[in-house]
Amino acid sequence: MRKNVTFYFDFASPYGYLAATQMDQLAADTGCDVVWRPILLGVVFRATGSAPNLQRPLVGDYLLRDVPRFARRLGVELHLPMPSPFASLAAARAVYWAEQRDPHLASSLAKAVFAAHWAEGRDMALPENVLDVAASLDINRDDLDSGMQDPAVKDRLRRETDSAIARGVFGSPFFLVGDEPFWGVDRLPQVADWLRTGGW
Amino acid sequence: MRKNVTFYFDFASPYGYLAATQMDQLAADTGCDVVWRPILLGVVFRATGSAPNLQRPLVGDYLLRDVPRFARRLGVELHLPMPSPFASLAAARAVYWAEQRDPHLASSLAKAVFAAHWAEGRDMALPENVLDVAASLDINRDDLDSGMQDPAVKDRLRRETDSAIARGVFGSPFFLVGDEPFWGVDRLPQVADWLRTGGW
Repeated sequence: MRKNVTFYFDFASPYGYLAATQMDQLAADTGCDVVWRPILLGVVFRATGSAPNLQRPLVGDYLLRDVPRFARRLGVELHLPMPSPFASLAAARAVYWAEQRDPHLASSLAKAVFAAHWAEGRDMALPENVLDVAASLDINRDDLDSGMQDPAVKDRLRRETDSAIARGVFGSPFFLVGDEPFWGVDRLPQVADWLRTGGW
Repeated sequence: MRKNVTFYFDFASPYGYLAATQMDQLAADTGCDVVWRPILLGVVFRATGSAPNLQRPLVGDYLLRDVPRFARRLGVELHLPMPSPFASLAAARAVYWAEQRDPHLASSLAKAVFAAHWAEGRDMALPENVLDVAASLDINRDDLDSGMQDPAVKDRLRRETDSAIARGVFGSPFFLVGDEPFWGVDRLPQVADWLRTGGW
């Protein structure tokens, strides 16, 4: 039986971007299926009383140095200076709309949105730019544009974010293998070992 | 020329303990010298407006699950249930007192204090217990007892903590290779690679 990894992320999280670039390799190495779950970290932080890392004293400085260093280590493109944190609502909704049609399309769109923002420096806070990225994947702009306004899609994002909090998710990226939680892109080796061995 | 790693930690940090168990291997693998620098995370958190992870919603639950799992992965003994957070003032002062005599003695004492607390469940908040551990390393109890009250030793701990904050340290464990910062026990593979390669 193939195992699932649920991959929680916010498009506004640079560590989420770094993790997203590694998901195909994780699937190839372990034979897992990756379930892509965009969430809104702002909602999570209100629940936990946390702040975005970039706004935390010292932590923010570290992030600005660590993310480019981590990207170099992974051989991942990163647009510098890094784009500012942004409202990822439109992008996250677009992914859930796409998932209703085809989970593979959803992950392709998520990867493309991440790359557009973090590797190319295109502002994915703007719904128009999300539509452009989607169009490059042969998604119909008008369909997606109305889909992102669909109350069912909006509600889906709310429910997924609430569900993530209920499952203990407090950051991005965050991985669940079954109920086993792993926080941070630096834990991907542990995620892979857990998938391969069934745990330790 | 041998390279230095400055290893900042608080004895009250379970991730600091896990990292401490890996320092001999890091030195063997990379030929580095490890400079052991106990600090007081409480002072750091006042400067950054943070709270101990154990007290942060969801983060605390994750820590309680992650630390034993990480210890199993490393093959490191851990006393369960884990001891509560504690005031590590006496233990930290003891290390700086020992360092004045011999840096090697300081690191031996630090490793012994960590193990006594986190592997054996002995409460290292109590100066008496720190003295017991020191005595097992043939440190004279009376000398250390008065040394821990020495204003110069107390001041040293304050200065090291302030210096850590000034260098961007916001958590435990935290490593500096030159000025290059790495946060977290899960970054030890990157620390080792940085030492081996001179950076990337």
